[in-house]
Amino acid sequence: MIDLIDRWDDARSAVQQVVEDAAHVVALDQVQLLAPIGRPGKIMAMGLNYADHVAEAGLEIPKHQVWFCKQPNTVHPPYAPIQIPKASKSVDYEVELVLIVGKRGRHLSRADAPDHIFGYCVGNDVTARDWQMRTPQWVLGKSFDSHGPFGPWITTSDEIGDPHRLGIRSIVNDEVRQNSNTRELIFDVFDQVTYLSQAMTLEPGDIVFSGTPGGIGAAMKPPVFLKAGDRVRCEIDELGALDAVFENEA
Amino acid sequence: MIDLIDRWDDARSAVQQVVEDAAHVVALDQVQLLAPIGRPGKIMAMGLNYADHVAEAGLEIPKHQVWFCKQPNTVHPPYAPIQIPKASKSVDYEVELVLIVGKRGRHLSRADAPDHIFGYCVGNDVTARDWQMRTPQWVLGKSFDSHGPFGPWITTSDEIGDPHRLGIRSIVNDEVRQNSNTRELIFDVFDQVTYLSQAMTLEPGDIVFSGTPGGIGAAMKPPVFLKAGDRVRCEIDELGALDAVFENEA
Repeated sequence: MIDLIDRWDDARSAVQQVVEDAAHVVALDQVQLLAPIGRPGKIMAMGLNYADHVAEAGLEIPKHQVWFCKQPNTVHPPYAPIQIPKASKSVDYEVELVLIVGKRGRHLSRADAPDHIFGYCVGNDVTARDWQMRTPQWVLGKSFDSHGPFGPWITTSDEIGDPHRLGIRSIVNDEVRQNSNTRELIFDVFDQVTYLSQAMTLEPGDIVFSGTPGGIGAAMKPPVFLKAGDRVRCEIDELGALDAVFENEA
Repeated sequence: MIDLIDRWDDARSAVQQVVEDAAHVVALDQVQLLAPIGRPGKIMAMGLNYADHVAEAGLEIPKHQVWFCKQPNTVHPPYAPIQIPKASKSVDYEVELVLIVGKRGRHLSRADAPDHIFGYCVGNDVTARDWQMRTPQWVLGKSFDSHGPFGPWITTSDEIGDPHRLGIRSIVNDEVRQNSNTRELIFDVFDQVTYLSQAMTLEPGDIVFSGTPGGIGAAMKPPVFLKAGDRVRCEIDELGALDAVFENEA
């Protein structure tokens, strides 16, 4: 998939021809969807990027973009059961707009950024809150096996246009928990690509979780964490939905 | 290389035969060494893991292991020039013992850990201090292009035995800056593997930077950061040395 993204300018018309030929069409319920990218080079993720989420965390709007990351063992299909790990008692959901980098680049300007984004999808930045907060560094609490589902597919940038106008929601067992719009992003996805590229060369297939709106389980009074059997649906207008049951680690 | 590590039990004797045949030997100065693993799945890294470094940072010995990570764009050969990035004014060195995971595993006990370590090498956890400290999350300041050289080669575990008895030093332009011994690690490498594996499945070719001893440039009075032309040598007894000049990003 990373190769396809990398060669998209050349491959696109061939792919489109295949898709338009009814002989190649397979019904969605006849396939098992995997993560759209099996092994992204980077999985960067932004913290504290919706004002209502910053407020529920009891923090102030950050002056600088707050970046952490997830590890590749978190990559997980959109509908597969997600682990409640043996080692954590406080597993939580975070619906996020995810962008997929399309072109290699460093020192990108804000004007360059849209051309470097291949597409968008939905992500669930599943988090072991106890591990996240055990030290000041979040990465380990964000990197348990299966805790980074994204998909259910990639919608290419040209189909979306401006990504900052999309309703974004998470629903736990039919209760809407997060309900916002990507227009509420503090640092928008173009700012994010620009900022990251000052430090790192972005590459095709890198993915970026762009932050979660208010409504996480940890901020409920009292906090409510996920338990085996809970079903979490994460959806974004025009991008589809992740929908998965949580189950105890075997 | 990750395939070789994964199949090491089967491949080992064949590799050893090749090495012992003089016809296959190439002088070290006739080859250009690259990073021993071009694209590790994970690059985990531990903070605050030598008492003298914790003290120079003005912090207390952490109760829990402090984990951050570096991104794959940091992977860099052992002797190649390292970037002083346009975006940072405070680039610093950190010599570290690096371990390479040999076998897939989760929930490893301390007794399991040695069998899951393929080998060891030297790492330089190059850091843009200004970016590291701009927010509480270190990963971006640790993930500039070229800022994760490791090598110069991998020494397999059987050749090292106990890795917690090795002199470890960094030298900047002939001045010894860090000078310690891996016996001073607060959480040793077996503790590290055990702890990480509670959260994540470790896989062949994952690498772990195990922490740096006291003597970083940021802790000098006044702080001294690296500038173009500085030469940094990072060495560990029995594992060899990284040796590279810093140069301004083109």
